Amino acid sequence: RKRVLVTGGAGFLGSHLCERLLTDGCEVLCVDNFFTGRRENIAHLMSAPYFEMLRHDVTFPLYVEVDEIYNLACPASPIHYQFDPVQTTKTSVHGAINMLGLAKRVKAKILQASTSEVYGDPQLHPQPESYRGSVNPVGPRACYDEGKRCAETLFFDYYRQHNLNIRVARIFNTYGPRMLPNDGRVVSNFIVQALKGENITVYGDGSQTRSFCYVSDLVDGLVRLMNAPDEVTGPVNIGNPREMTILELAQRVIDLTGSSSEVVLRPLPQDDPLQRQPDITLAKSALGWKPTIELETGLESTVAYFRDLLAVEL
Amino acid sequence: RKRVLVTGGAGFLGSHLCERLLTDGCEVLCVDNFFTGRRENIAHLMSAPYFEMLRHDVTFPLYVEVDEIYNLACPASPIHYQFDPVQTTKTSVHGAINMLGLAKRVKAKILQASTSEVYGDPQLHPQPESYRGSVNPVGPRACYDEGKRCAETLFFDYYRQHNLNIRVARIFNTYGPRMLPNDGRVVSNFIVQALKGENITVYGDGSQTRSFCYVSDLVDGLVRLMNAPDEVTGPVNIGNPREMTILELAQRVIDLTGSSSEVVLRPLPQDDPLQRQPDITLAKSALGWKPTIELETGLESTVAYFRDLLAVEL
Ligand SMILES: NC(=O)c1ccc[n+]([C@@H]2O[C@H](COP(=O)([O-])OP(=O)(O)OC[C@H]3O[C@@H](n4cnc5c(N)ncnc54)[C@H](O)[C@@H]3O)[C@@H](O)[C@H]2O)c1
Ligand SMILES: NC(=O)c1ccc[n+]([C@@H]2O[C@H](COP(=O)([O-])OP(=O)(O)OC[C@H]3O[C@@H](n4cnc5c(N)ncnc54)[C@H](O)[C@@H]3O)[C@@H](O)[C@H]2O)c1
Ligand SMILES: O=c1ccn([C@@H]2O[C@H](COP(=O)(O)OP(=O)(O)O)[C@@H](O)[C@H]2O)c(=O)[nH]1
Ligand SMILES: O=c1ccn([C@@H]2O[C@H](COP(=O)(O)OP(=O)(O)O)[C@@H](O)[C@H]2O)c(=O)[nH]1
Ligand SMILES: O=c1ccn([C@@H]2O[C@H](COP(=O)(O)OP(=O)(O)O)[C@@H](O)[C@H]2O)c(=O)[nH]1
Ligand SMILES: O=c1ccn([C@@H]2O[C@H](COP(=O)(O)OP(=O)(O)O)[C@@H](O)[C@H]2O)c(=O)[nH]1
Repeated sequence: RKRVLVTGGAGFLGSHLCERLLTDGCEVLCVDNFFTGRRENIAHLMSAPYFEMLRHDVTFPLYVEVDEIYNLACPASPIHYQFDPVQTTKTSVHGAINMLGLAKRVKAKILQASTSEVYGDPQLHPQPESYRGSVNPVGPRACYDEGKRCAETLFFDYYRQHNLNIRVARIFNTYGPRMLPNDGRVVSNFIVQALKGENITVYGDGSQTRSFCYVSDLVDGLVRLMNAPDEVTGPVNIGNPREMTILELAQRVIDLTGSSSEVVLRPLPQDDPLQRQPDITLAKSALGWKPTIELETGLESTVAYFRDLLAVEL
Repeated sequence: RKRVLVTGGAGFLGSHLCERLLTDGCEVLCVDNFFTGRRENIAHLMSAPYFEMLRHDVTFPLYVEVDEIYNLACPASPIHYQFDPVQTTKTSVHGAINMLGLAKRVKAKILQASTSEVYGDPQLHPQPESYRGSVNPVGPRACYDEGKRCAETLFFDYYRQHNLNIRVARIFNTYGPRMLPNDGRVVSNFIVQALKGENITVYGDGSQTRSFCYVSDLVDGLVRLMNAPDEVTGPVNIGNPREMTILELAQRVIDLTGSSSEVVLRPLPQDDPLQRQPDITLAKSALGWKPTIELETGLESTVAYFRDLLAVEL
């Protein structure tokens, strides 16, 4: 049985990944400090015989024995990663160093959850992995973007210096059940607003674009990357190339929920990227991966999840 | 008497800065781990009553009482910063965190020696501070470039989170006495080669450009930035806008030394920037600063320094 460590395993993506790895027959060690993760996300896994939860902050050293490491620990939504920017940078940088040091000691394969944010507000569209990005190093998003860039650097330096078996995935916007209802990301915001009959808050004029990937597709991409031949280090984009404006997303959510909510415009946050779409040529050729879940299908399951969640809250 | 900490104070720029600050009547604490710094650089200051040298690595905490901090600790030449890339990143990132933590505790003003390398291989020419750069996050220069970008991020987050009094200088290529003869930087390489009658090693076809600032001008820019009104946080470019090709530099060094050395072409290192020139509009307006030393004059003193150094070595 492969022993797999998932940092950030109680979060949105991490909890789905733990589930998938258990299904695949792995022994899973989930490490999380519960900053944005929740016990509810993994409650259904606690009784599984090969699942273990360890409360720990990756900015501190971790001594465990494992074969593979998925390093996902890091708040992913702007309101959370801007809550304590220095801590966000430390999570990415010290977290990477500690997990790389661990991987080195136990000779584990290690995958980094990087992000499309390394491209910043991209001037090249869609974004291939070779694009060097346009990140404002001194802006309010920099703690996340630069922290993640620096983590990629550390991965490649451990690879070159110590021959570590690394994988770097650049994850594009992902959505699905277990997003936090209040973490400010657009899909969860819009669905919760629609279900509650509140105004749908579109930032800016809503003409900015994103490309949304359903969580099961994303998790499958990560697992394929981990299992790919060793020369496939990445960085490799994982995301759904179907691009749309935020206004269009708002309309779809309203349609799907049959909500009476109305769109209202709010100020665009500083450094908010205008467009984003993954070029997934590499993922297709190197991993044989492409997304399979249509937006409509994915949104339906996500709406169903939030409907249940809000019903309990009432 | 102002108590000033200079990290990396035994290095090329640091030693000139310490000298200048002593001249200005400051009490100077020079902190260095002697990775690329040398005791020779500060030997002449050791007997000054207000100069103190402390051997210390900035990746570890430092508890001292000072009024101002110039954070220069970091190897600056590719062969040194690529010697142990992970250590380079740690020096920039942990070093920044420790010095910011110190500045926060003692309420000191703190200046970061950032670099034109945050612009990577720039697609915009000349480079204004607003340019977001083109850095390869997974290449061999990334440990330096991304480490410095991340340090800038930390400076601005401490500024926003803790109201720290910060300054960020983006230093462009600087030359002068006390460069290491063997650290691979172009000015020292060419001069040493010319003086020894060895071949002048031009990388690539020599058509790449740089803009070289003499060290006394640079140091003056740093001191002005530190003394500027508190709202002048930067980042601000400090460098000499006079741009030239590397081949032209080689020719000038040959002319100036009267050497019989010949130019030979060597492979261009990966990710070597093609062009670089500071836009110093901001430094002029906010600091009343511009460089004053002509290249010919600056090269002459540098040649004189290396002539003496090599004479001793023989
Ligand atoms: N969801 C997306 O659209 C997206 C896009 C790009 C990248 N990513 C990356 O994927 C990873 C997971 O994202 P997510 O959407 O699941 O976010 P999330 O916030 O739901 O999950 C992050 C998890 O990491 C934990 N964590 C944070 N700091 C920690 C620390 N110092 N030590 C231990 N645990 C810590 C949190 O408690 C949480 O459980 C992140 O690294 C994120 O940057 C996500
Ligand atoms: N010289 C340039 O052209 C140039 C250009 C851009 C930026 N800079 C920046 O200016 C600063 C000084 O550059 P320099 O040209 O004098 O380089 P240098 O290598 O001569 O000096 C750096 C000094 O820092 C010390 N140091 C390195 N790591 C340390 C650590 N962990 N703890 C304590 N001391 C440490 C070294 O021993 C050395 O004395 C650097 O931060 C560099 O990135 C220089
Ligand atoms: O099993 C381990 C081994 C290392 N580390 C951390 O990883 C860091 C980097 O380790 P590495 O061996 O690369 O370098 P070191 O810092 O030990 O020189 C160390 O400082 C430890 O904090 C860890 O958390 N678990
Ligand atoms: O209630 C919201 C939340 C987000 N957004 C916008 O939706 C896009 C995606 O935001 P999110 O925070 O989900 O992801 P990221 O910006 O990190 O891609 C951005 O343009 C946001 O400004 C919005 O219009 N309304
Ligand atoms: O006088 C000081 C105060 C702090 N630090 C270091 O600076 C870091 C950041 O300090 P800060 O107070 O910002 O945060 P902390 O880590 O203490 O929460 C600390 O971890 C210490 O390592 C230091 O070297 N000297
Ligand atoms: O012996 C040398 C050393 C450097 N260079 C080139 O000179 C330029 C400046 O190099 P340096 O390392 O001094 O500074 P940086 O590249 O960091 O600006 C680069 O294009 C190098 O490839 C060169 O042609 N010959």
